[in-house]
Amino acid sequence: MPLLVMKFGGTSVADLGRIENAARKVQREVERGYDVIVIVSAMSGKTNELVGWVEGTSKLYDAREYDAVVSSGENVTAGLMALRLQEMGVPARSWQGWQVPINTTSAHSSARFVSIPRENMDAKFAEGFKVAVVAGFQGVSPEGRITTLGRGGSDTTAVAFAAAFGAERCDIYTDVDGVYTTDPRITDKARKLDKIAFEEMLELASLGAKVLQTRSVELAMRYKVRLRVLSSFEDTDENSGTLVCDEDEIMESKVVSGVAYSRDEAKMTLVGVQDRPGIAAAIFGPLAEAGVNVDMIVQNISEMDPNGPTTDMTFSCPTNQVLRARKAIEEAKAAGTISYADLVEDADVAKISVVGIGMRSHAGVAATMFKALAAENVNIKVITTSEIKISVLIDRKYMELAVQALHDTFDLDKVG
Amino acid sequence: MPLLVMKFGGTSVADLGRIENAARKVQREVERGYDVIVIVSAMSGKTNELVGWVEGTSKLYDAREYDAVVSSGENVTAGLMALRLQEMGVPARSWQGWQVPINTTSAHSSARFVSIPRENMDAKFAEGFKVAVVAGFQGVSPEGRITTLGRGGSDTTAVAFAAAFGAERCDIYTDVDGVYTTDPRITDKARKLDKIAFEEMLELASLGAKVLQTRSVELAMRYKVRLRVLSSFEDTDENSGTLVCDEDEIMESKVVSGVAYSRDEAKMTLVGVQDRPGIAAAIFGPLAEAGVNVDMIVQNISEMDPNGPTTDMTFSCPTNQVLRARKAIEEAKAAGTISYADLVEDADVAKISVVGIGMRSHAGVAATMFKALAAENVNIKVITTSEIKISVLIDRKYMELAVQALHDTFDLDKVG
Repeated sequence: MPLLVMKFGGTSVADLGRIENAARKVQREVERGYDVIVIVSAMSGKTNELVGWVEGTSKLYDAREYDAVVSSGENVTAGLMALRLQEMGVPARSWQGWQVPINTTSAHSSARFVSIPRENMDAKFAEGFKVAVVAGFQGVSPEGRITTLGRGGSDTTAVAFAAAFGAERCDIYTDVDGVYTTDPRITDKARKLDKIAFEEMLELASLGAKVLQTRSVELAMRYKVRLRVLSSFEDTDENSGTLVCDEDEIMESKVVSGVAYSRDEAKMTLVGVQDRPGIAAAIFGPLAEAGVNVDMIVQNISEMDPNGPTTDMTFSCPTNQVLRARKAIEEAKAAGTISYADLVEDADVAKISVVGIGMRSHAGVAATMFKALAAENVNIKVITTSEIKISVLIDRKYMELAVQALHDTFDLDKVG
Repeated sequence: MPLLVMKFGGTSVADLGRIENAARKVQREVERGYDVIVIVSAMSGKTNELVGWVEGTSKLYDAREYDAVVSSGENVTAGLMALRLQEMGVPARSWQGWQVPINTTSAHSSARFVSIPRENMDAKFAEGFKVAVVAGFQGVSPEGRITTLGRGGSDTTAVAFAAAFGAERCDIYTDVDGVYTTDPRITDKARKLDKIAFEEMLELASLGAKVLQTRSVELAMRYKVRLRVLSSFEDTDENSGTLVCDEDEIMESKVVSGVAYSRDEAKMTLVGVQDRPGIAAAIFGPLAEAGVNVDMIVQNISEMDPNGPTTDMTFSCPTNQVLRARKAIEEAKAAGTISYADLVEDADVAKISVVGIGMRSHAGVAATMFKALAAENVNIKVITTSEIKISVLIDRKYMELAVQALHDTFDLDKVG
């Protein structure tokens, strides 16, 4: 029997009406001849309520108890979804993590999958059950305690089941109808993509496109799980949404598939840093320890000063981490592990990225991008590149303008 | 290490503040040198919310899914209680039913205990944990699915753990401070009992005293678990509350320990029932099938009529089941399985009971009771007796008066 994995997030199961709506989508796939594994999140708001209770009880909480409490929201949804399917005449039952079992590491609150043995669930499909409703986001440790995967983990649960059971596809139902060339709130020329390659989706996810968890895309890429993003709130058919797949499945890919942005970026520059081997580690070690998420890093060429070579070191981080970053750097200077002339902050920048696997085989994408920005008088402050991505930092006030210009330049509103 | 079981009901863990309050009571027992098994209910209101969702999803729900959903409330409280204890420096962890495991039958929503193996929990006590916080009301079936024990099942969980672990005592913390000689709302002479025998508590519980679940008292009696009822909301010490124990522990017991009442009773009489072998079964079979909870039954002596012997058959049931009872009886008459001259209803009666193990060795308790009621001009409509209980039905308007008179007559306001 062909098998499908379908995942419904918190807003898609927010109340009994939405659970019924989701159940109808499952029923339709059963009627098409599929066995279905459904992965559900907690009803939206429930996980936050549970987290609030844990944090209200204990600031430095025991992660094992956190997991035991917080995982309960998904158990409720799984039971309710199974009941709704039964009510529709679809043979279904719920599964909690320990019942499958979903074996994970003991890293509570950020556990990783170890194995998902098929025996128990396969036996139930063989008995005539058509749907297994699995509580997402959770697993069980080797010690027999409940683990969770970290926020957004239900996407990852879905992909892991699709891999373990050789599912034909893993459909992620959410509150948007697919992956767009850019944010439709920035330009109405934004176009939904029919297909996108894993690598592109991974770059977009890590750039802040909130459609899929980065980790679930990584897992899908590794196990070649065809992943589809589509809307819970619209009528959908086999062509709906966006398919995230191997690039071989994408016949004609554009040079650039999408333009992403991240609004709340800050740029910090250490001017006149004494340049010596190990200086980067001396700067970024303390920042990492302070929990600063450093993104882009640029180091200029050295200049010769009377006291030895110096350089400028620039990095970006989220705006709300600037104070923490400054403290870490000033402490490192006070401790004598680094020395610099000045620390310059610019908290009013945004990051714009163009992403596309076509870049690998096309020269001149960067030049085209820079020309387009120059034509709009947008000054580029920092540049970094990867194999399939070019990112720049610009003044935040030009962000919308830059996204629109690049979307036009790379013809993203046109199909094919 | 001596071991104590402590159980906290829904109102005792209704919010984080009350969980903290309950945790302090646990901490105090640990400081006294006890290992403690804590049984918790769901935060008050949570179970009803979950039941509402299940019933809103499916009227004729699958009890296995009902149990999977409804048991989640206790898991949340167990985790929060463990966290609060840790925060106070008490080594504690939570246990869900399947982790212990609490083995039950497969009778979902009304499962019965099969076994509670001690190995897992004993190993944790040996590692240095002082408190095991157990989610009440739940267990796991031989098929590995979550079961529940039926409403109020957490009291029963507590007694079962006390029996399995040989606990010194099982303390049931609730919203009243003990068991009273009668309802303090009826007479301010009502007195809290220091001790009460299992058999008496069982009669009082089944008469509607809502302090303890009948089933938990039965279990405690069978395994000789000393059970104490005391308040969550007061400062308590080793003498607080009421101890429910074997009658051997009660040095001097009064003839009557308590007066119980049940307000919403109805009396129904079948007048001129054709008396023949099997007539009782022909009447009460259909009533049972219709879900009528028949309580007292009285059959008068037969009279000889021209058409054969006839009798009057009287029974009592809750007021809100009168319509259902009438329907069942009239259908039986229409079907020809019973015949009677008239069906007389009296929906304005109350039941008054006096309970005491001392009755076994004292004659004349019934006579004393009837005399006291006669002195107040209270007419007795039906009488039934058991070894340690005498119950009467009277007009409802005399209920308070009768309770007060009997409380005085048997000197229940006086100690010893």
